Amino acid sequence: MRLSTLSLVLLLDCVSHATSLKVQTGPWQDIALERQAHRDRSIAAVSPPIPSIKNASKLPLNVLNTARSMLTPRETKITEMGSMELLEEMANGGLTAVEVTNAFLRRAGVAQKLVNCVVELMPETALSRARFLDEYYRKNKKTIGPLHGLPISVKEHVGIKGLDQNAGVAGWVGNDAPDDAQTLKALYSAGGIFFARTTLPQTIMHLETRSNLFGTTVNPFNRNLTCGGSSGGEGALLGIRGSSLGVGTDIGGSIRSPSANNGIYGLKPTAHRLPLGGIMATMGGEEQIIPVIGPMSTTLEPLSLFMSVVLGSKPWLKDPRLIPFPWRTELNFENKKIKVGVMRWDGIVMPHPPVTRALEQVVAKLCEHKDKFEIIEWEETRAKKAWDIISSLYFGDGGAEEYAAMALTGEPVLPMSKWILTQPGVPAIPGHTISKVWNLTLEREIFRAQYAAKWIAADIDVLLMPVGPGVAPRLETAKYWGYTSLFNLLDYPAAVFPVDKVSEKDNGVWEYEPTGEKDKENAMLWDPDYYKDAPISLQLAGRRFDDEKVLEALAIMKKTIGLPFVDTTK
Amino acid sequence: MRLSTLSLVLLLDCVSHATSLKVQTGPWQDIALERQAHRDRSIAAVSPPIPSIKNASKLPLNVLNTARSMLTPRETKITEMGSMELLEEMANGGLTAVEVTNAFLRRAGVAQKLVNCVVELMPETALSRARFLDEYYRKNKKTIGPLHGLPISVKEHVGIKGLDQNAGVAGWVGNDAPDDAQTLKALYSAGGIFFARTTLPQTIMHLETRSNLFGTTVNPFNRNLTCGGSSGGEGALLGIRGSSLGVGTDIGGSIRSPSANNGIYGLKPTAHRLPLGGIMATMGGEEQIIPVIGPMSTTLEPLSLFMSVVLGSKPWLKDPRLIPFPWRTELNFENKKIKVGVMRWDGIVMPHPPVTRALEQVVAKLCEHKDKFEIIEWEETRAKKAWDIISSLYFGDGGAEEYAAMALTGEPVLPMSKWILTQPGVPAIPGHTISKVWNLTLEREIFRAQYAAKWIAADIDVLLMPVGPGVAPRLETAKYWGYTSLFNLLDYPAAVFPVDKVSEKDNGVWEYEPTGEKDKENAMLWDPDYYKDAPISLQLAGRRFDDEKVLEALAIMKKTIGLPFVDTTK
Repeated sequence: MRLSTLSLVLLLDCVSHATSLKVQTGPWQDIALERQAHRDRSIAAVSPPIPSIKNASKLPLNVLNTARSMLTPRETKITEMGSMELLEEMANGGLTAVEVTNAFLRRAGVAQKLVNCVVELMPETALSRARFLDEYYRKNKKTIGPLHGLPISVKEHVGIKGLDQNAGVAGWVGNDAPDDAQTLKALYSAGGIFFARTTLPQTIMHLETRSNLFGTTVNPFNRNLTCGGSSGGEGALLGIRGSSLGVGTDIGGSIRSPSANNGIYGLKPTAHRLPLGGIMATMGGEEQIIPVIGPMSTTLEPLSLFMSVVLGSKPWLKDPRLIPFPWRTELNFENKKIKVGVMRWDGIVMPHPPVTRALEQVVAKLCEHKDKFEIIEWEETRAKKAWDIISSLYFGDGGAEEYAAMALTGEPVLPMSKWILTQPGVPAIPGHTISKVWNLTLEREIFRAQYAAKWIAADIDVLLMPVGPGVAPRLETAKYWGYTSLFNLLDYPAAVFPVDKVSEKDNGVWEYEPTGEKDKENAMLWDPDYYKDAPISLQLAGRRFDDEKVLEALAIMKKTIGLPFVDTTK
Repeated sequence: MRLSTLSLVLLLDCVSHATSLKVQTGPWQDIALERQAHRDRSIAAVSPPIPSIKNASKLPLNVLNTARSMLTPRETKITEMGSMELLEEMANGGLTAVEVTNAFLRRAGVAQKLVNCVVELMPETALSRARFLDEYYRKNKKTIGPLHGLPISVKEHVGIKGLDQNAGVAGWVGNDAPDDAQTLKALYSAGGIFFARTTLPQTIMHLETRSNLFGTTVNPFNRNLTCGGSSGGEGALLGIRGSSLGVGTDIGGSIRSPSANNGIYGLKPTAHRLPLGGIMATMGGEEQIIPVIGPMSTTLEPLSLFMSVVLGSKPWLKDPRLIPFPWRTELNFENKKIKVGVMRWDGIVMPHPPVTRALEQVVAKLCEHKDKFEIIEWEETRAKKAWDIISSLYFGDGGAEEYAAMALTGEPVLPMSKWILTQPGVPAIPGHTISKVWNLTLEREIFRAQYAAKWIAADIDVLLMPVGPGVAPRLETAKYWGYTSLFNLLDYPAAVFPVDKVSEKDNGVWEYEPTGEKDKENAMLWDPDYYKDAPISLQLAGRRFDDEKVLEALAIMKKTIGLPFVDTTK
């Protein structure tokens, strides 16, 4: 019986607990209302109480200032510090973990009321942990670890012991996580405080965030737009500064899309570096395309810190899937130029003008520093092939497990779920034959080998490119995954970083003749008025296992040319 | 069409060449005769000519001395030096590559006549390479690399440019390898000389070596016994000292079984360390159980040398499947006890008395050095489960590709092929559903996680145990893979080393009450007279990616207690 083993592979760290998945049959509406009531109670427990929204219909599209207006100036100040600054202040006694945690609980509560990004807050356990850490600091005159006192938000399907874990499936509500996910354990041991759990979409396979349990999460910079997905609750919460460090997952763009849409930093690491133990999902045992867990943050530095903390716990000792090397701190680019490949578009879908503008801006600035950067043009010719392969491998069973999960309660199959589940490569249920899977796997391997050969021939260190075919899309239009899913197919690390935001600079007429159906569909979505204030982000990818190199290159680029050019939160 | 892509995944390094696999339809007998004639011509080209065998029916069972009698004393001396000594002599000018290569060509030719282990010799290219290296040495007063001048033998399905590559399938004869296999390229660049290609069994899935192309390869220490398999030609050739370093592959014991049966050293490395590019096999794209390539040698040190040379070529740059770390030379056991787990049997099949005797001997000796070793008892309880999982994953398509390959020419399905293809877990053609594969993969993952947990709890560094349920088995009886396939399921590195040989010490009555069907079947095979002179070997395994640690521990054990206790070649 597959359902009983669904979560097993991802719950490896706690195998003994994972033999029974409880299911319920609905009605899903009641289950959703119960979960929402639970969420609201958890927010109501935050003190002082979070003001309710008056005149919700009159909220501006950009609610950053609305959020600020609902907080004290000190709360605003604390929550707008980056993780590194917060850690430093807590390490030198300038701030207590309790004050920091409460400020983020408050802002996350506000965020929920404005953009619907929270599954639950954890005021009691978070503040209890914060008090413990403050006490530890008082007693020992030192921090407990490199994340001492830092509030960390977590995507819902990454399990936290004793809390409901349902992966967005109404019929799975009622399963308390048997343990903290393995990655979370490492963050916790280093002093992290889990304080908020965030929304994800049905099937966890949208580049948006809508489920029957919690409805739609929107973008805090422009509520007409999506926050992205599937780590969309994280994206929105971090975007509105209700968190400074979050935990996301990515199998097609799910860390990078919401990071880009909300003007924050995100890293999709190489697979098998960070442990997946304790994450709930369908299709346990599927290995052709492997999901990853990774960091999302309002600043760049915490991405490396997150990686080094989790890898510092030597997770490979417990999880035999992981590759046993730590976060490598030796520098790759000391007195050495960074060779930056530039992919202006993928040959299939031309990005909207703001993305191209930002990319050209960055390239122009890099070109001003010829001592530090060498720009190499990268013509992408295999994007269609990449999508054909990966979209045929996502649901090898034809989506049988997804449909079965949704069918438990009869919850509606949402449009974006239907869209991805009916891509041309998805087989009919019961799915591909073994022979077909082997052929697709061969195609994947050949694709990877050829991409590696091209990379070697081009002699580049990193590849700079769009994160998607535009800024945060309008709701239910995020249908082009190619810019992110390419690196899931390749299993390359890829980071996302903010550059600018949509402004009057983007108001000109876009004279572009689409080259094909998908290109046309995307081009028709462009309208400068609609995307006002949306953050513009770019992506920097590196070869498999070059996670450290990607973040080092990004840090050098950021420092040298002064990224982001515009603060999207102002 | 699967057949056209069969070899693709393993030919990754030369993807552009691999789009068409030529097939022929027989008669297989003619194809076999043609291949044997080709082999014989290649041996006839060795100079001086290799004497033919007079009175083949009067050959002794142990043909080590027969081989010596067919060579000059100097050839015998050279070929009985280990690789390290040969390399040293060539590096200091004491021996030339030409002389060494010719000696091994001669002894390999002799070996073929005695035990039928050769697919072809390569006198022209090998001697040409040797002359080049000698010239290089004369001109530059230094070696070209760490393998300068060393003759290396290669299992047939590991491709050598321009030479026929058929993986033991009659219908595949006629495919010239488009390039050297990627692992071979690294060995070649380091100064290695490929001089002999060796036999493998039909399907490459026997722990013996018999194909319709070349018949049966037997054991040089006792020709009534199998040389093992599937790298059986290598095992026999190295055992008879017709090579000092060879290249094998292993997915269930194929490096370790022939190493053990022939009293040599072999390492099955962790998967994804050494490149598989250029190896021919069925089921390209299958990833549940991954084959590995690795070294076999008459002495221990060349195993590390082989690994460090191949990893030193940074094969991961070309092959994206590989894990990017070099052969690690930092010591694990400097001033630190080695914690040796001891698995006396696997709970399913009790090894024959010589194996137990050797294991007890080694343990007793280790116990004499309490400063260096700590012995920890390891009770194996999961061997049945391990075999159930791995034997269900070997042929996910029900053997369709194997049968199709054999059916090309109608060549007979040999008994050992039939045996493995009809294990209870092998599905009916067309094979497992996706859902079943995912379940089996989950079972594999759970098994691995639980084994890791047990390993951590036992707090051991390495696991000492039998390589199989006896010494080299009688022909067509090698049916118990459990002692080796366990580490393919786990993807743990495992080394094999000689300890002793069967002698009058093993003549006593074995009073053993079998515990089950497989145990009984194995027990009934025991008869001290039948296994005379067979080498007795043991296995040392370590955790995934602990390849270096395993070889370091083995080197310390070997030096401290003086392994092997008996020279099997004397």
